[in-house]
Amino acid sequence: MSSSILCAGSIALDTTRTPFKTAERVLGGAGTYFSVSASHFASVSLLGIVGSDFPSAHWKLLQERGIDLEGVQRSSGKTMFFDSEFSYDFYARKVHATELNVYEHFAPSVPPSLQKTGYLYLGTLEPSKQLHILESCQPRFVLMDTIELYIQKHKKELEKVVSKVDGIVLNDIEARMLCKKPSLFQCARHIQALGAELVVIKKGEHGSILFFEDFVFPLPAFPLETVVDPTGAGDAFAGGFFGHLARSKNMGEKTLKQALAYGNVMGAFCIEDFSVGKLVSLSPEDIQSRFERYQKILQI
Amino acid sequence: MSSSILCAGSIALDTTRTPFKTAERVLGGAGTYFSVSASHFASVSLLGIVGSDFPSAHWKLLQERGIDLEGVQRSSGKTMFFDSEFSYDFYARKVHATELNVYEHFAPSVPPSLQKTGYLYLGTLEPSKQLHILESCQPRFVLMDTIELYIQKHKKELEKVVSKVDGIVLNDIEARMLCKKPSLFQCARHIQALGAELVVIKKGEHGSILFFEDFVFPLPAFPLETVVDPTGAGDAFAGGFFGHLARSKNMGEKTLKQALAYGNVMGAFCIEDFSVGKLVSLSPEDIQSRFERYQKILQI
Repeated sequence: MSSSILCAGSIALDTTRTPFKTAERVLGGAGTYFSVSASHFASVSLLGIVGSDFPSAHWKLLQERGIDLEGVQRSSGKTMFFDSEFSYDFYARKVHATELNVYEHFAPSVPPSLQKTGYLYLGTLEPSKQLHILESCQPRFVLMDTIELYIQKHKKELEKVVSKVDGIVLNDIEARMLCKKPSLFQCARHIQALGAELVVIKKGEHGSILFFEDFVFPLPAFPLETVVDPTGAGDAFAGGFFGHLARSKNMGEKTLKQALAYGNVMGAFCIEDFSVGKLVSLSPEDIQSRFERYQKILQI
Repeated sequence: MSSSILCAGSIALDTTRTPFKTAERVLGGAGTYFSVSASHFASVSLLGIVGSDFPSAHWKLLQERGIDLEGVQRSSGKTMFFDSEFSYDFYARKVHATELNVYEHFAPSVPPSLQKTGYLYLGTLEPSKQLHILESCQPRFVLMDTIELYIQKHKKELEKVVSKVDGIVLNDIEARMLCKKPSLFQCARHIQALGAELVVIKKGEHGSILFFEDFVFPLPAFPLETVVDPTGAGDAFAGGFFGHLARSKNMGEKTLKQALAYGNVMGAFCIEDFSVGKLVSLSPEDIQSRFERYQKILQI
């Protein structure tokens, strides 16, 4: 079975405002962040849609990271656009505009060459679209993500997707919203009962916690003094996590722990620059060196 | 220099209500939780005050843990009393009553035999009282705690105490309130500039993070499925942390990391029962075995 990853998710143009700098119409989108991050670990194909305004430089950047774009549709409309602003604390984000544009009517279609992908990542898409993609493929392992909007609007369909996947990555707010339980342990057990045996909960600056069968593994975030732009950190995390699982081709306890650590490492790299600026600049040695530093920090 | 600890802090009677059980007038107080926890690591003397209603069984329990009570005044009034309630989520606590009683007019006086203590822990007391105790002793190392009330009401005096101690333990809310900065890294640098070179920030279910000189060390909480009563967890944490520092008699990186881990281990034990029920029942093997499990979990 191939260790290649198929990632379905959004590709966007982001305007991100921080008190220190504004980045205008830079490459963004959860699918983008995931793919660029995962491409350091495994071969990645992206399934998504862009408009006619999508800069060729962005297309080229993704290709140069070795990301297969056969599954990316080019439409005549406008690319998804997201405009947001962080205040000095980098915690709360004020959203100025979310224009789904061509992403709203995206009808995902998996090219035959990608239907035999080993690892499928169902990024933030409406649950019905996630299900359609899932049913088009015969993957070895499926990991999904979701967002508050789909939990609120499409809960029943979302739970159906959860029942059919192997794992889910979501943040603590989403977990509590989906499960209506305050304890993350109880949320994880609830999701496992729905059908996903691997549950990874992202906690931003507090790191992440992984549940698999009876196994519970918490990790703090990789300690970083300086944040440039937190956009995409959760998706870069998921890319590192799933990328390491795919390249390791097993689900042993050691692999899961290391995957979570690589996820935190990639999330930390992500926030050190706007867009995927830092993520595309990384060498294998940069990633390995930070992973080993993290290992050393946690050795008590 | 002696590795004994002198802990100044509150001794109280707690009524704690949870959806599952109510514990009435059980042994509580930050000084109590700290001392019982630290007594597993070093010899501890407690400096505090109780009223004439303080049950002799509680006094005996502290003595049986080997805690020296020479510095505990017995007054004719009522012991400090705290009545609080947790809802199903165990996050928010509703306070029904905080009666300081004899603690309000507590005039701490360090008996001559305790003035040469090696390790001094200044628990939650008004800054002027912390300062008075500090000036009565010649300790090798001083760690302090504080609460929101003193940050709001006695900030100048509190900052003076911070300038005279070696380290401080406080929670994330207190750190942000004291420093008026959202980033915990920035808070730590701010506190270090005030004078405390060791800064430990407690984050409840998210663990803790330690700053010492240029060294940053984050740890997740020890993973626990079931919570009985979160009261005292932060004080039990501080007891395990300081207890290990005292018994190790050094401030090396390895010692600091292990101290933080012992702190998290003791905090996790604490919340498994009401009052100090679990903490007094522990054997050295229980503590060591959980510490080693924690070490193994974090080995990636």
